[in-house]
Amino acid sequence: MKKLILLAVALPSLAFAQPADQIAAMRDDAMASDTLAWEIVEGLTTEVGQRLAGTPAEERGREWAVRRLNALGFSNVHVESFEMPVWVRGEERAEIISPFPQSLVVTALGTSAATSARGLEAEVVGFASLAALEAAPESAVRGRIVFVDHAMRPTQDGSGYGAFGPARFRGPAVAARKGAAGIVIRSAGTDYHRNPHTGGTNWPEGVRAIPAGALSVPDAEQLARILSRGRPVRMRLTLTPRNLGRRQSGNVIAEVPGSDPTAAVILIGGHLDSWDLGTGAIDNAAGVGITVAAAHRIMRAGQPRRTIRIVLFGAEEPGVFGGTAYFERHRSDGNIALVAESDFGADRVWRANFSFAPGNAAVADRLAAALAPLGIARGRGPAGAGADLGAWAGAGVAAVDLNQDGTRYFDYHHTPDDTLDKVDPAQLRQNVAAWTAMLGVVANSPEPIAAREVPPPAAR
Amino acid sequence: MKKLILLAVALPSLAFAQPADQIAAMRDDAMASDTLAWEIVEGLTTEVGQRLAGTPAEERGREWAVRRLNALGFSNVHVESFEMPVWVRGEERAEIISPFPQSLVVTALGTSAATSARGLEAEVVGFASLAALEAAPESAVRGRIVFVDHAMRPTQDGSGYGAFGPARFRGPAVAARKGAAGIVIRSAGTDYHRNPHTGGTNWPEGVRAIPAGALSVPDAEQLARILSRGRPVRMRLTLTPRNLGRRQSGNVIAEVPGSDPTAAVILIGGHLDSWDLGTGAIDNAAGVGITVAAAHRIMRAGQPRRTIRIVLFGAEEPGVFGGTAYFERHRSDGNIALVAESDFGADRVWRANFSFAPGNAAVADRLAAALAPLGIARGRGPAGAGADLGAWAGAGVAAVDLNQDGTRYFDYHHTPDDTLDKVDPAQLRQNVAAWTAMLGVVANSPEPIAAREVPPPAAR
Repeated sequence: MKKLILLAVALPSLAFAQPADQIAAMRDDAMASDTLAWEIVEGLTTEVGQRLAGTPAEERGREWAVRRLNALGFSNVHVESFEMPVWVRGEERAEIISPFPQSLVVTALGTSAATSARGLEAEVVGFASLAALEAAPESAVRGRIVFVDHAMRPTQDGSGYGAFGPARFRGPAVAARKGAAGIVIRSAGTDYHRNPHTGGTNWPEGVRAIPAGALSVPDAEQLARILSRGRPVRMRLTLTPRNLGRRQSGNVIAEVPGSDPTAAVILIGGHLDSWDLGTGAIDNAAGVGITVAAAHRIMRAGQPRRTIRIVLFGAEEPGVFGGTAYFERHRSDGNIALVAESDFGADRVWRANFSFAPGNAAVADRLAAALAPLGIARGRGPAGAGADLGAWAGAGVAAVDLNQDGTRYFDYHHTPDDTLDKVDPAQLRQNVAAWTAMLGVVANSPEPIAAREVPPPAAR
Repeated sequence: MKKLILLAVALPSLAFAQPADQIAAMRDDAMASDTLAWEIVEGLTTEVGQRLAGTPAEERGREWAVRRLNALGFSNVHVESFEMPVWVRGEERAEIISPFPQSLVVTALGTSAATSARGLEAEVVGFASLAALEAAPESAVRGRIVFVDHAMRPTQDGSGYGAFGPARFRGPAVAARKGAAGIVIRSAGTDYHRNPHTGGTNWPEGVRAIPAGALSVPDAEQLARILSRGRPVRMRLTLTPRNLGRRQSGNVIAEVPGSDPTAAVILIGGHLDSWDLGTGAIDNAAGVGITVAAAHRIMRAGQPRRTIRIVLFGAEEPGVFGGTAYFERHRSDGNIALVAESDFGADRVWRANFSFAPGNAAVADRLAAALAPLGIARGRGPAGAGADLGAWAGAGVAAVDLNQDGTRYFDYHHTPDDTLDKVDPAQLRQNVAAWTAMLGVVANSPEPIAAREVPPPAAR
């Protein structure tokens, strides 16, 4: 670091607390040699493992994070608690009773209702898509176990999840409304391993939850083949999750204090909780490691102008409870300059999108220039932040999205396979480099970063 | 087929019932358009699924095969029954109690002893290899749960299994002899998915079986990381398999009758049973499909000189019970000319090895020439057949090995992931083409195929 500090001292412009040359040097050093992000991902996934929201495991994750953030020298490390409804997995089995007796690999979707301990036996009715289920008469569905297939494929920008994820987000409620006894969907995933993809599903007001599971992709194709024989197919579905009522979760907060108390805060983060099947390495220990390691680099290089606040959110997976609690508690503070979130794995950043007020075009240009040497293209879209910080971007706060390559993401997302070995250390370093460059630019810009005009919610 | 039959009639040499040109045409037709092998693999894995030896599922597999072989027009389709000891899986869980509470994915090895229903709790002692366990004093092992790690990597010829498989074959007995309470090994596999690899383990006379499981590779690496922290690690291991005593299994047999009753038989096959975790697509519905489809092509093209006998063996996985029963029952029949087995997945044949008597060099040369257009190299090694037919090769019967590419094989072998989607239809067709060419040559060779001189067992 000695070399970097000398560079900073030697540069003439004092308008930038950390000037462009220093930011470039920090970026390149991260790309070449960052180890902190890996240490955080390795430590959190090894020493805590899965961190299901509202459980003692998530609490151990918070304790781990507080210890680590204090040891790293961050300021104002603390937890903001909130309550949220807790759902935990039970037994899960799907057995074909006839015509070809065999077991299929299934996992319950978050907020699935439970069957009895002996399971639910019914005939299976299959649909090639959510649209086909939506078009079906109630008479085809009532009392049956619905199977919803789909054709999700890997996409670099993750758009396959938007296109085919609704089979999970909405399919169970559609089936419930039509009187289905239960539902199994083809996992919202792109792999061919017998690891089903869990994830939340939504039960709108007035819809009573039914048992809802996801089959692994090979098992979904097996069921489709069995159905294709044209004989009645009977399944026994056993899912025994439980709702534990409201329990405590929390957001872990840490800061790099800025030198200018009048400048607003750069708010970044990822989520600390995970689903229970894997160890939450790509979803989202990676986001924790990337944001913490980048902020740590900015801190080590000298005080930035703006305070950087890291929030490691609790209870994102079951319904963005941590992000919502943080927004509700702090929305009127009026001191957030910009938000950015890392929650799409650990693969390389390939594109950056920005949402700045028109007067901040120069900041966007400096950002694009600082990111380009990492092979990051400037996108044309707005930035939405992610699930936990999206409310801020929606309210007009400036936002930056550092888009990660999503080609592999939905191979592992929400599965038992989300483990440390899926993280590529070289791509993880590129993320830290991109975040370091981004934070260096936005935390030190001499001009104010303004909020954008957004229409009031009613007009949107 | 009309074209092929005309070709056969037009050829002058009557010494070959199916001459070289016809064999080449059959081979190339298989490569271009075989569908039967795929239909068999798809049907057996979909309509029967897993086929654990000695269970009703394996019996359904035999019934399925008998129906299919009769429908395809094979002769003398029948089952030869035998008895074998049956072991079935129960619950399986491995939980780290301290210092970092979490669950690991484990599966019981075949013939593992059972823990109590509440599980076995003990401190874990880790070894980097089987050799390290073997070198350890009893005092380091007694009363503990042993963990054996290793460094198996993918190899085209499958040699990694020979190098690292002993952690499974012998590790549990080594641990039991030193007084271990239980053992978990790193799966004998080369993938990074949370699908553990089961498989048999051996308990020599006088060694009392202990609970023995395999962790998936990501879980084995997780346990190694946990142990690397240097704190005592306590595990609760729950494995509740049961021995059901002796039950019936059987070999399914079918023939393509030869035109020359004085010529000896070409004996080929694969195994019909599978482990219980997957649907046994690559291990070994593929071998069933490949051998049946190739023999069917020979049959459709006109009667070969020699009878081709297909044996679809039962109970290979738990200990080659079907292969042993067949050899014991038929070893003195004295009418087997050559053996060949397909039991290494569905990926392409890259090499052929032959074991012929010195006087049959011309047959070997014709075989190599018939296989070369498929990109199959002539190996320098002897042919050993496989587990089920190896006893015949060992006794001096001529043998052919069509070696398949094993690079992916140990990603899926004995795991839940051994499912239809792992079979590449194009590579499966290449296998059928190679087997068709091979059978065309050896079933029609005008010269006798002689047994090799082998030293008596005592001298070997």
